[in-house]
Amino acid sequence: MNVLAEARITVVGLGLMGGSLAGALRGQCTNVTGVDIHANTIEIAHRRGLIDTGTTELASGVQDANIVILAAPVRAIMGLLTKLRPLLSPGCVVMDLGSTKTQIVAQMGKLPPSVHPLGGHPMCGKETSGIEAADVDLYQDAPFVLTPLPRTSDTALLQGMAVVEALGARPLLLDPVRHDRLVAAISHLPYLLACGLVGTVDTVAANDASVWEVASSGFRDTSRLAASDVTMMLDILLTNRDAVLEMLRTFEAALEDLATLLRSENEDELRSTLVAVRDHRKEKFP
Amino acid sequence: MNVLAEARITVVGLGLMGGSLAGALRGQCTNVTGVDIHANTIEIAHRRGLIDTGTTELASGVQDANIVILAAPVRAIMGLLTKLRPLLSPGCVVMDLGSTKTQIVAQMGKLPPSVHPLGGHPMCGKETSGIEAADVDLYQDAPFVLTPLPRTSDTALLQGMAVVEALGARPLLLDPVRHDRLVAAISHLPYLLACGLVGTVDTVAANDASVWEVASSGFRDTSRLAASDVTMMLDILLTNRDAVLEMLRTFEAALEDLATLLRSENEDELRSTLVAVRDHRKEKFP
Repeated sequence: MNVLAEARITVVGLGLMGGSLAGALRGQCTNVTGVDIHANTIEIAHRRGLIDTGTTELASGVQDANIVILAAPVRAIMGLLTKLRPLLSPGCVVMDLGSTKTQIVAQMGKLPPSVHPLGGHPMCGKETSGIEAADVDLYQDAPFVLTPLPRTSDTALLQGMAVVEALGARPLLLDPVRHDRLVAAISHLPYLLACGLVGTVDTVAANDASVWEVASSGFRDTSRLAASDVTMMLDILLTNRDAVLEMLRTFEAALEDLATLLRSENEDELRSTLVAVRDHRKEKFP
Repeated sequence: MNVLAEARITVVGLGLMGGSLAGALRGQCTNVTGVDIHANTIEIAHRRGLIDTGTTELASGVQDANIVILAAPVRAIMGLLTKLRPLLSPGCVVMDLGSTKTQIVAQMGKLPPSVHPLGGHPMCGKETSGIEAADVDLYQDAPFVLTPLPRTSDTALLQGMAVVEALGARPLLLDPVRHDRLVAAISHLPYLLACGLVGTVDTVAANDASVWEVASSGFRDTSRLAASDVTMMLDILLTNRDAVLEMLRTFEAALEDLATLLRSENEDELRSTLVAVRDHRKEKFP
């Protein structure tokens, strides 16, 4: 039996992530409602066929929902969780797509006992944002982390897994603190490296603008994340500060090891380090 | 008049870069000869239609050439330049595709006065290497840096520009020292960042292998260069050590600025720094 077939799902926030999710779920459940503060965004979501119904009013948008999914930057989700407390129907499952989980899950713990919270974080995205960039295939084959609370019922977890599977994503259960440390390494650190790289090239460009003329695909890929949505990234960094700072220290040590080998022209050790790194990268991303 | 139509071009080294270049030039000149130490590589180049003739003998491969193009890692090019001294016909133009230029151009200065050296560096590539990965469109629209020596004649420079244009690339004249500093920022630094990132994730993975399961496109792109050919990169780093170490220091300062803003939760400054970086990245790579 299809767990979602009878569900009324409300997606709060119709940006890239929420708009893509709404469009991917539409047709696999009774109804997809989109809530966004901008009437214009709802109009675009309608025109693109991503939602069944839409509203700018949070209260009316969630009142009949069986599943509410919050798709916004982390601190906006924290604010929504406070506002939602008096608005949800008993039995409603409350999920989110926030990029850090510890603070959100703590906030979810304050929801009324009649509703069922479940943290979530899909490991996909684009450096473009907004409903215009929405893509119903965005979640296809992506890992989708679920971070249940101690109070999360088996039924709610099953519904969350059904949402993930309906998106074509792969569910992965993790503890919120562990999740935040892993994404600090794999996602938040790369963002800061991309920003530091662009900053470095800007410094060089101040004296020699030709540096941009020789930039090719290597620079483009390594710096891609620097174009990410700033509000989203700022929320991520500030709600995952300690783990991010830990990863920065680990990275700085790794980079300094490479610099030391180069400075001393220790060719044999430098080669074996670079070979090990290359082999790990190729093993993980063949 | 087509400057290349009457030319006999010899490409020494049929890896990704040399094989792609040979294939792109073939048919636009009288003859393309490929030289490689591996007979098997020459066979593949023939089978793929990338060369007119091929040989494992450097001397016979270059003896009738009007243009010789050296396509090998930087230190291999330095060795070839020594070997080539007695082998070249008078009037021959000697180009290379080496990724750093200062040391190569100094070595080119020792060629007999009867030949015409011209340093070169195409700003394109792939993280895969070898003749199997050759692609005749690899150079299309890429910047191709040319670093003439004081002794480089106008005729030799025109022939070099004709080669670049025949590849579909865009010639860009630079002084070798300036070139090396710019590519340290835009290419060699990103490589080391990718390696440091993989090293950091390896450190995390030693305690929690799930880190690889949550890796998505952001990590994949930021770490892509870590899969580069190690011999090529080692030659680059060791022949451009001072500029690379300078860029590492500039980068470390930029990263430390970001870490300080995050540590002190200076949200306003952190936001304005990230916004400036995002805007520059989007301006340069729209």
